[in-house]
Amino acid sequence: MRVDGRENDELRTVKFSKNYTKYAKGSVLVEFGDTKVLVCATCENTKPKWMPKEETGGWITAEYSLLPSSTSTRCQRERTKLSGRTQEIQRLIGRSLRACVDLEKLGERTVTIDADVIQADGGTRVASICGGFVALNDMFEKMVSEGELEENPIIEPIGAVSVGIMNGEILVDLCYQEDSGTDVDSNIVLTKSGKIIEIQGTAEGDPFSKEEFDTMFYLAKKSISKIMELY
Amino acid sequence: MRVDGRENDELRTVKFSKNYTKYAKGSVLVEFGDTKVLVCATCENTKPKWMPKEETGGWITAEYSLLPSSTSTRCQRERTKLSGRTQEIQRLIGRSLRACVDLEKLGERTVTIDADVIQADGGTRVASICGGFVALNDMFEKMVSEGELEENPIIEPIGAVSVGIMNGEILVDLCYQEDSGTDVDSNIVLTKSGKIIEIQGTAEGDPFSKEEFDTMFYLAKKSISKIMELY
Amino acid sequence: MRVDGRENDELRTVKFSKNYTKYAKGSVLVEFGDTKVLVCATCENTKPKWMPKEETGGWITAEYSLLPSSTSTRCQRERTKLSGRTQEIQRLIGRSLRACVDLEKLGERTVTIDADVIQADGGTRVASICGGFVALNDMFEKMVSEGELEENPIIEPIGAVSVGIMNGEILVDLCYQEDSGTDVDSNIVLTKSGKIIEIQGTAEGDPFSKEEFDTMFYLAKKSISKIMELY
Amino acid sequence: MRVDGRENDELRTVKFSKNYTKYAKGSVLVEFGDTKVLVCATCENTKPKWMPKEETGGWITAEYSLLPSSTSTRCQRERTKLSGRTQEIQRLIGRSLRACVDLEKLGERTVTIDADVIQADGGTRVASICGGFVALNDMFEKMVSEGELEENPIIEPIGAVSVGIMNGEILVDLCYQEDSGTDVDSNIVLTKSGKIIEIQGTAEGDPFSKEEFDTMFYLAKKSISKIMELY
Amino acid sequence: MRVDGRENDELRTVKFSKNYTKYAKGSVLVEFGDTKVLVCATCENTKPKWMPKEETGGWITAEYSLLPSSTSTRCQRERTKLSGRTQEIQRLIGRSLRACVDLEKLGERTVTIDADVIQADGGTRVASICGGFVALNDMFEKMVSEGELEENPIIEPIGAVSVGIMNGEILVDLCYQEDSGTDVDSNIVLTKSGKIIEIQGTAEGDPFSKEEFDTMFYLAKKSISKIMELY
Amino acid sequence: MRVDGRENDELRTVKFSKNYTKYAKGSVLVEFGDTKVLVCATCENTKPKWMPKEETGGWITAEYSLLPSSTSTRCQRERTKLSGRTQEIQRLIGRSLRACVDLEKLGERTVTIDADVIQADGGTRVASICGGFVALNDMFEKMVSEGELEENPIIEPIGAVSVGIMNGEILVDLCYQEDSGTDVDSNIVLTKSGKIIEIQGTAEGDPFSKEEFDTMFYLAKKSISKIMELY
Repeated sequence: MRVDGRENDELRTVKFSKNYTKYAKGSVLVEFGDTKVLVCATCENTKPKWMPKEETGGWITAEYSLLPSSTSTRCQRERTKLSGRTQEIQRLIGRSLRACVDLEKLGERTVTIDADVIQADGGTRVASICGGFVALNDMFEKMVSEGELEENPIIEPIGAVSVGIMNGEILVDLCYQEDSGTDVDSNIVLTKSGKIIEIQGTAEGDPFSKEEFDTMFYLAKKSISKIMELY
Repeated sequence: MRVDGRENDELRTVKFSKNYTKYAKGSVLVEFGDTKVLVCATCENTKPKWMPKEETGGWITAEYSLLPSSTSTRCQRERTKLSGRTQEIQRLIGRSLRACVDLEKLGERTVTIDADVIQADGGTRVASICGGFVALNDMFEKMVSEGELEENPIIEPIGAVSVGIMNGEILVDLCYQEDSGTDVDSNIVLTKSGKIIEIQGTAEGDPFSKEEFDTMFYLAKKSISKIMELY
Repeated sequence: MRVDGRENDELRTVKFSKNYTKYAKGSVLVEFGDTKVLVCATCENTKPKWMPKEETGGWITAEYSLLPSSTSTRCQRERTKLSGRTQEIQRLIGRSLRACVDLEKLGERTVTIDADVIQADGGTRVASICGGFVALNDMFEKMVSEGELEENPIIEPIGAVSVGIMNGEILVDLCYQEDSGTDVDSNIVLTKSGKIIEIQGTAEGDPFSKEEFDTMFYLAKKSISKIMELY
Repeated sequence: MRVDGRENDELRTVKFSKNYTKYAKGSVLVEFGDTKVLVCATCENTKPKWMPKEETGGWITAEYSLLPSSTSTRCQRERTKLSGRTQEIQRLIGRSLRACVDLEKLGERTVTIDADVIQADGGTRVASICGGFVALNDMFEKMVSEGELEENPIIEPIGAVSVGIMNGEILVDLCYQEDSGTDVDSNIVLTKSGKIIEIQGTAEGDPFSKEEFDTMFYLAKKSISKIMELY
Repeated sequence: MRVDGRENDELRTVKFSKNYTKYAKGSVLVEFGDTKVLVCATCENTKPKWMPKEETGGWITAEYSLLPSSTSTRCQRERTKLSGRTQEIQRLIGRSLRACVDLEKLGERTVTIDADVIQADGGTRVASICGGFVALNDMFEKMVSEGELEENPIIEPIGAVSVGIMNGEILVDLCYQEDSGTDVDSNIVLTKSGKIIEIQGTAEGDPFSKEEFDTMFYLAKKSISKIMELY
Repeated sequence: MRVDGRENDELRTVKFSKNYTKYAKGSVLVEFGDTKVLVCATCENTKPKWMPKEETGGWITAEYSLLPSSTSTRCQRERTKLSGRTQEIQRLIGRSLRACVDLEKLGERTVTIDADVIQADGGTRVASICGGFVALNDMFEKMVSEGELEENPIIEPIGAVSVGIMNGEILVDLCYQEDSGTDVDSNIVLTKSGKIIEIQGTAEGDPFSKEEFDTMFYLAKKSISKIMELY
């Protein structure tokens, strides 16, 4: 039995509170158990500066941050430079969300996804991807209804979950206490139809076999389907 | 009549939701109308590094930050350096809260007050001071009950409010729309007994008279008393 | 009796040496006793970059710096980032001087006030404001006489002074030795006609009453009048 | 047929030139075709500063850098901050190499792996991992023979390769021209016995199926075996 | 006799391996004994941003960097700011190479010389200047033959060498072991016809006489002639 | 005839105003014509942190800065990073002054020389060296008389001057207008007995001959003697 009484393949309570703040067009509070992330989507009507003039289409970028009080012992604000961890997570969120949007249809716009962690209890990056999808979709729907966009440029919904191995057990949606003791830590991002957007698996302790990875993948797929029902 | 129908000397709905997050010992969501600030207090059992060895007593410091989606148009994260505005607000919050605590009784500890603005609709700095007092007091109460502190080192409660002059009218607790059009902007921090901790008044437009300032002070005092009833 | 023999409401010897350097159009060495600040005003014929295109009118900004040898023990140069104190002082100087100039009349120009402290013995920020006014006015006069400006855009002269409370005594124009021991520290910026540009009062130790503040204000007003006679 | 005439599952010419420079204890020039990376291992006899006092054992960290002239158009040196890409690669190299070393046996030491890319033609991160292993092993062997270490703390050799999907074809060891046109980009790090250290797969274009991923894994495993024969 | 058996006026083995990498138009590995520097020249078809619009002609700039494993004990990468030493060397290389090129003939172009030290055994800055000349000349020849330039804008070849005084002996081309023990360290950059581009002499220990300097100059001139024969 | 009517080998009016400020132990305003530099020497009773524990003796370091209003058009403050020019000048001042002091006799102390340019009209670095010597000597004398030092650790006075070539004429002590038009720019630092501490010569335009350099050296020597008479 797991630390919080769950089955190995059982998700924590997942919840999406939409329209959470009043200024951003897409804004959702995602909860995976005690993990709470505020994810907002905003849109500027210009391409990013680095994009060559001849390129048409838009861009989606993500910023991720832990509030200092979100962690069990207070964490430092990143006010002079970003840690490698933060940059890695931001890049993962941005890449995943770009993969589910037709950037040509988006047109010459720059979308920013802000994922600010209010409370961190494991799985903040996958919660941010799920919340990011919801905020993005909400924003696009609003832009369509307000005549700013002709149609919603989303190709297919995506979702994400973490899976790990601890003492030989394969566990879905790890909470912080589990996460810090795992041998293998994995994050999987899939489309609604079950195709792979991103797959990451890291042996923190002993290396793992391909067969273990296959089981992890199978459980992740099942869990992501359940999460998507809550969108 | 004001933009949101209030009387000139009327506060917005003020609300303190205590124990808002699970890790920090003091944690409160302060609301002044649509302004929402999450304020948390955490405590380390060491003096700050800059404090000379021979000095006894502790310290209280504050960090303030706007979430990028908290403002009507998305604001940039301060990830390489802090703006002057942010530093000024942090210094004001820290100074005000130190003034209401007996730092000798606090002992060799460093308290950090984190004020993270979830939604900004004017008056974030005074909301942060009020919330900071509540979070601080909650934390000290918890530390006393857990035996970490012998007694609560707070000397006297403090509170703060903004007052301004717009088109010759003196207004209390300005919302963002009012704030950006005022001629005079003032922030006042008082103790429960009505003594002054900090007083600031700036003419953004025309200079103002001592008599006007005296009225502003009188209205601020009345409003702060009302806010303190909600602690 | 005060540490340097002055009465409580007595200023130190105040002196303005104009045209102190040869390149800047406005350049003055201000002395308040042993406090010596070189303040220079220079003007560029473009608006600041952050100002929206549609906005007409100019801007005045200030930079403040302590020479490392200006303080009793050598202070560090701010070569990688600015302290909160420096930013606060710069913002105060800039705000005060903008309040006495008709920015529309100034036209699309950016004025920079550089306040470099040669010797610091308390009150450098108010000395910088007084010196800043003199340098600004000198520069504008020169620009008018050289045909660069049609008329001097200054609305009304301003002046500033510090007032504090120490052991229950209210003291004007504190020197460094006094300043570091005060309970209350206040800086007041007024126009020639006695209107308020900026008012700041901070309890470093015990909070103070409105009545004490009123006396501080009265003494500041008297002292600022005396300083202005020396412009 | 591929752009350089290779079969889909064929590696470029892989070469390890050991003892490439004279100061570092482990030093190798790795070549994967035209990709050339100088990888050096050096060792300090202290734990990293961030490691808690009570923790025994050592650490392995990696730094990665592109020489500006290593890329087809000159790239900027990272002299003020690191890009997310550089940080991600450094973390991958460090994590992979830590996973093949018994850090307890290493003792209170900090090993730095420097991977400096002389010429970049795709696959620099996997070349750096392979070269990093060789440099690390050479250094440990030297330290054992010089009596600095009792035994070589390496648990099992590791190797790495890139695999991608382009126009539906699964390709091993992509060169730059292929790399920039792929739909799916994957990096796989395995132990000699075929266990997984790190697995990463990203859809740059269309998402991919689990079956495609399985084939990619199979080809990576075969290729890594061949690379390890050249160690 | 010197530490490596050379005569006082004898150079180490000097070698230029041209076309060392495949992307940069000019690329050379320079060796002065165990000192090995990779120097590459690349050219952009725009003027530097700081150059006023009205100015015609181009610019040559240089960047210098030590690989961390190039020194006997690993040196830190300069990833947040440049040391004074690095900046001084970069400025010397850039200034020397600009002095041998007709910048008007170069036209509106910016040339960057990258000197990356693979192995440092004394004299890296003079090796970089010699290698910089060779890379620059190779690049210009290629640009002429490809029709990008009408003629090679080099005015006259230049060369550089170090000379020092150790225990009263004047030594040419100091290796690291000698360099760290010298009393006087000097770097001399001359044109083929023997004119002076740059002359630098520093007493690390005792000051030296003009007569000693004259001998140092004479030996440098002879050595530079020999180096130039190897271009 | 020169722009200010001087002979080619004639210095501007040179002046040293000692004890210029009240806090630093050595403090002098140096003037070379319109060039005015405030140079202060301060001393801490600890070795610099980078100095190995086993090393005895002290250190002398220098910081150089232009006040923004010191130049004919306002120059930017260096508040985030130092320019190469500033670093080069600081290193030159520090190196020159260390060469005239017995660092063993100085003992475990760190001396800082602050050279802040009030007005820049050419030759600020050589003025800083001369002023630095005077400030250093004054500080040491005071320390000896106050019993902090047994004897003044200065070995021999030093002085410095600039020499240049313009239109074939060799000119001593160039003012700014001359300096910006020279072909050759040279700075020479000598001891009282005429030995060389530092010698630097750079062809900004055409290269120059050894004979020209010899004349420059001869004139510099004569001028430095005259400057030293004013110490």
